[in-house]
Amino acid sequence: MKVSIGIDIGGTGTKFGIVNMEGKVLYQGSLPTQTEAIFEDFIGAVAKEIRKGLNADEHDLIGIGVGAPNANYHKGTIEHAPNLRWKGILPLANCLEDEFSVPVVVTNDANAAAVGEMIFGGAKDMKDFIVITLGTGLGAGVVSNGQIINGAHGFGGELGHTTVNYTNGRFCGCGKRGCLETYVSATGIKRTVYKLIADYTEPSELRSVSFDELSPEMITKYALKGDIIAKQAFEYTGRILGTKLADTVVHTDPEAIFIFGGLSQAGDLIFEPTKKHLEKHLMPIFKGKVRVISSQLQNQSAPIIGASSLIIDKLKKDKEDVLVDK
Amino acid sequence: MKVSIGIDIGGTGTKFGIVNMEGKVLYQGSLPTQTEAIFEDFIGAVAKEIRKGLNADEHDLIGIGVGAPNANYHKGTIEHAPNLRWKGILPLANCLEDEFSVPVVVTNDANAAAVGEMIFGGAKDMKDFIVITLGTGLGAGVVSNGQIINGAHGFGGELGHTTVNYTNGRFCGCGKRGCLETYVSATGIKRTVYKLIADYTEPSELRSVSFDELSPEMITKYALKGDIIAKQAFEYTGRILGTKLADTVVHTDPEAIFIFGGLSQAGDLIFEPTKKHLEKHLMPIFKGKVRVISSQLQNQSAPIIGASSLIIDKLKKDKEDVLVDK
Repeated sequence: MKVSIGIDIGGTGTKFGIVNMEGKVLYQGSLPTQTEAIFEDFIGAVAKEIRKGLNADEHDLIGIGVGAPNANYHKGTIEHAPNLRWKGILPLANCLEDEFSVPVVVTNDANAAAVGEMIFGGAKDMKDFIVITLGTGLGAGVVSNGQIINGAHGFGGELGHTTVNYTNGRFCGCGKRGCLETYVSATGIKRTVYKLIADYTEPSELRSVSFDELSPEMITKYALKGDIIAKQAFEYTGRILGTKLADTVVHTDPEAIFIFGGLSQAGDLIFEPTKKHLEKHLMPIFKGKVRVISSQLQNQSAPIIGASSLIIDKLKKDKEDVLVDK
Repeated sequence: MKVSIGIDIGGTGTKFGIVNMEGKVLYQGSLPTQTEAIFEDFIGAVAKEIRKGLNADEHDLIGIGVGAPNANYHKGTIEHAPNLRWKGILPLANCLEDEFSVPVVVTNDANAAAVGEMIFGGAKDMKDFIVITLGTGLGAGVVSNGQIINGAHGFGGELGHTTVNYTNGRFCGCGKRGCLETYVSATGIKRTVYKLIADYTEPSELRSVSFDELSPEMITKYALKGDIIAKQAFEYTGRILGTKLADTVVHTDPEAIFIFGGLSQAGDLIFEPTKKHLEKHLMPIFKGKVRVISSQLQNQSAPIIGASSLIIDKLKKDKEDVLVDK
């Protein structure tokens, strides 16, 4: 049976899985990302764990896809990732090719989510769409003409760093001010709750919660209970996201925008204001034409499935016939 | 000799030419766009004029490219163009295929300029770049992975309608407020001159010029003579363009942004503030990496060359061997 390997490297943990051509995870596991001092040893440890699930008689391995922070698609490297212990340029694809002797594709986790949506999720019949991932930050995978936009330097789709407020916006980890992800992300909505508590006098159970304790799940829970600060925080977040997405739409004219990740679990709390303000600010020719919907890859294994889909997509584009079981 | 036909349909005039595979215009002409009451008669008149330059013994016609307002690339039609006398959906590609029995590609003039830049101009070795056309409005052709982004509905790259000011921006012909082209275009800089005259008391020769008389060429002339209002109008225009382009860069990560059209003739007056404010607002990973340069197709025949390049690009992508002289 044809299988691919999907690996999702995060700042804390690394997940991996063996995935069949229908997107079913046959085997999966995880290990902490940063235990090894040497990057090559870390990849060796990941490979060892994966081999426990590979069966030479049963599995015909076509390749490996990896979602990783600061991934350079063109070079197959991780470059200067601030959240990893290994500094400089890490030869990720080369290391994995040495271990498994199959083709390897590397990209960031948002691009992996977008390709996963195209191969196994809600974008199967789409050539032009966007996946927004709402985690600690805001990532995006932009697909046009059926291809991920990696761009000239490998940094296409960095929509978290479009600017909401040039003059006195929130400070961003990237060094700029007013970036979209400082408003629209797990961290962004926490900052918004604190801003609203600072600005208004309305009572709120969130007044007794510290910033470090605060989570999107908690804000969701209180918003559903009618807490005015929590509800307004979602309204504020959706307004900024919808308004900025109107600018994004005129760039690539997507058929749909998928929202993926923790914050999207809040459902209508986030989708309603996002859709409303997107429609309000859309150029008239686009009104009513762009759907904002939840990702169809919302489960624990989504990052593995997304990563594994990278190599399937690449081999499809290369018109390799290795994808067909004979 | 292999040749293609390029046609540029404008609200007032239509230009056409016979172009060889090196982008040299062998024959060209023009006629008024709106003399015929029936669209098919207009295409018949254009075809008749083109045939005067075609020589069956000498020319091997590979196809036709057309730049037209409100062009739908996917359908080969012009749809509801406000500046044309023929209403509804016009079967442009079909009409030309009937006349010449060769493949026809239709798109808007900004996309034609971008493909022209890729085939014959400064973007020959680029896969990811943007061409901004500054005419009455602001158009853009966005190329990613070597392909124009037409988008799901055929309206990709409508960057003139990204929003500069949501709350009290200038009114735009599209129905929105604060669109980029209300600031950055031939009309936009005229509006800026009038705003500056309204806001400030500095003396300026432009105070004696009516809005209808005012032109970008005139503003350029006075700016070069040191007129403070004219100089500030360019600074204001470049600041807004550069600032908004920083948002565009994070979408598609272009290698270069080409500026095409009337306003770009002002040289440093427009390029200096644009580059300065782009760099200032770029996400750090892009700083110093994105060139802003003048189009290399700046001549009278550029729209014809751009249009003709559309069919060459399409046949190349389709891997047709009709492009090679045998």
